[in-house]
Amino acid sequence: MASNKRKIKNIVFDVDGVFTTGQFLYTKDGKLAKVFGPHDNDGIKMIRPHLAICAITADKRGFDITKKRIDDMKIDLHLVSEGDRLSWMKEHFDLNETVYVGDGIFDAHIFGHVRYGIAPANAFHLAKKHADFVTKSKSGEGAVAEACIHILEKFFERNEMLKELSGKKKKKQK
Amino acid sequence: MASNKRKIKNIVFDVDGVFTTGQFLYTKDGKLAKVFGPHDNDGIKMIRPHLAICAITADKRGFDITKKRIDDMKIDLHLVSEGDRLSWMKEHFDLNETVYVGDGIFDAHIFGHVRYGIAPANAFHLAKKHADFVTKSKSGEGAVAEACIHILEKFFERNEMLKELSGKKKKKQK
Amino acid sequence: MASNKRKIKNIVFDVDGVFTTGQFLYTKDGKLAKVFGPHDNDGIKMIRPHLAICAITADKRGFDITKKRIDDMKIDLHLVSEGDRLSWMKEHFDLNETVYVGDGIFDAHIFGHVRYGIAPANAFHLAKKHADFVTKSKSGEGAVAEACIHILEKFFERNEMLKELSGKKKKKQK
Amino acid sequence: MASNKRKIKNIVFDVDGVFTTGQFLYTKDGKLAKVFGPHDNDGIKMIRPHLAICAITADKRGFDITKKRIDDMKIDLHLVSEGDRLSWMKEHFDLNETVYVGDGIFDAHIFGHVRYGIAPANAFHLAKKHADFVTKSKSGEGAVAEACIHILEKFFERNEMLKELSGKKKKKQK
Repeated sequence: MASNKRKIKNIVFDVDGVFTTGQFLYTKDGKLAKVFGPHDNDGIKMIRPHLAICAITADKRGFDITKKRIDDMKIDLHLVSEGDRLSWMKEHFDLNETVYVGDGIFDAHIFGHVRYGIAPANAFHLAKKHADFVTKSKSGEGAVAEACIHILEKFFERNEMLKELSGKKKKKQK
Repeated sequence: MASNKRKIKNIVFDVDGVFTTGQFLYTKDGKLAKVFGPHDNDGIKMIRPHLAICAITADKRGFDITKKRIDDMKIDLHLVSEGDRLSWMKEHFDLNETVYVGDGIFDAHIFGHVRYGIAPANAFHLAKKHADFVTKSKSGEGAVAEACIHILEKFFERNEMLKELSGKKKKKQK
Repeated sequence: MASNKRKIKNIVFDVDGVFTTGQFLYTKDGKLAKVFGPHDNDGIKMIRPHLAICAITADKRGFDITKKRIDDMKIDLHLVSEGDRLSWMKEHFDLNETVYVGDGIFDAHIFGHVRYGIAPANAFHLAKKHADFVTKSKSGEGAVAEACIHILEKFFERNEMLKELSGKKKKKQK
Repeated sequence: MASNKRKIKNIVFDVDGVFTTGQFLYTKDGKLAKVFGPHDNDGIKMIRPHLAICAITADKRGFDITKKRIDDMKIDLHLVSEGDRLSWMKEHFDLNETVYVGDGIFDAHIFGHVRYGIAPANAFHLAKKHADFVTKSKSGEGAVAEACIHILEKFFERNEMLKELSGKKKKKQK
């Protein structure tokens, strides 16, 4: 049985530059805030019935900020440095059953090892080059939501609302 | 009498991604701020003589932020979850007399049921597909102002200043 | 003597959407911050030898924020509501000697009455339509600096550094 | 021996508009925060084995903010006013061995005196005109990381990871 016929079971998200614009506000006291965007939580809710979802970050200084938001979306967050990222992934998941969403230089390297790699429109150019799919949306502007719907359409069944919305624009119902 | 000849009486705005860029600043303590934009309050003032205006949001965590800004613009704000949005709209308005402005996946669904649906330039692609009109401006960059002027031009009379500005560029008056 | 041969003596800047991106951060306590951009203070320094500079704003709620930044640039700031803007301008300046830089719906109206009107690239469409010059830069991304250099080039003499930079790209000097 | 054959030994970064978007958040109490972006620290780590790295800023009011972030990246920061920038550079470095990365009007002037000048995509137009290389990325969106990789490729050896990523997209390795 060909390995690429295996069912997708996991999706792993890098956080900065995927759920956020990649930017952070610095004050004289350090990292104050990160910029998260719309639609992404709606996308997460749609794939939750199908996939185990987890998030990883290498940002120690901004970890508390990241954790607050990722917790609010009910996703598990792990602190994994860039250099350890691939080995950590191999240890925790069968990469042939795993989708990875990332935007950075090190993420480009991971895309060569997972079943399916997705990069936001504004990812670093090397990440986009090695991704299987690049979203039209930028991170912090709906990239995660677009990635989730893409995964549903490619590997699973669309839910009823998506089927209706993806079809022809209907006449007004009143 | 054809139903689509009825007068437009109401306009309902989603807030996040319509009045805001859709983005929010997270600190380690949670949502700190949202980004609102220029011109929108000027547009609201122009349609106020013609329409009942209300705003709805599904954002519980950011409700206090949203409410502060929407109150400052003298608009009523209601907390309505995405799933309840269409039934809430049907209960409170004759949808055939109602314009709806939204940007999200669930808003796309509502556009099929109201008299006229408007999405900002940066709305989620499914929302733009099902809208009757997509503004050239992004949310948080004048989308609401543009939507208001569009509604005035399409369904009502332009005020005097708009008539002057929409005409040919005049010679300097000095 | 034709009135349009008079020397330009004054430049008046709207602040929001000209020195700022037009956006403001709202927290649950109200307006927290505005986003100002690069280069603009350098441009202001270049025109100061030639022109009386002042700034006006209609933003009462954000006045303290605006004032702090405009004071830091050593520019006088006046609170003038949109409706009173044109009459205030006429009262304080000979409009035939005055450049106005603005981005909003009401600013479009003023452009018809001043000697020369400038709008940033991201101004409201009606403002851009009625401006004499639209900068390539967006507000909060160098629009004021570009406007200042444009005014120097059009109505005055470029300073030495600008002459050098505007000429052909020179060979490395080492 | 031709002077342009000398080895590149130093890289000097302007901070605002290079590591940041160029924008800053003002509250009623003054500058609160600057917006830094993704990937840049990864790029810095890659050039550190090859080059002495330093940063300069002319921003007195925002110095504490800038210093906090630049310290976190383990780079020396110096406060140097725009007018003194070129003479300061000449005093501290052999400019024929020095790369300079800047975005402003005064930086354009420096580009004529250093070995190699780099400007981000969103630099002031005169800076881009006089730069030897303009990044495709905007500042605060990866411009520093792109500049670092460009310097590695042009003047040094790519590291192993970059060699792999810059080659042809490889088949999945599983």
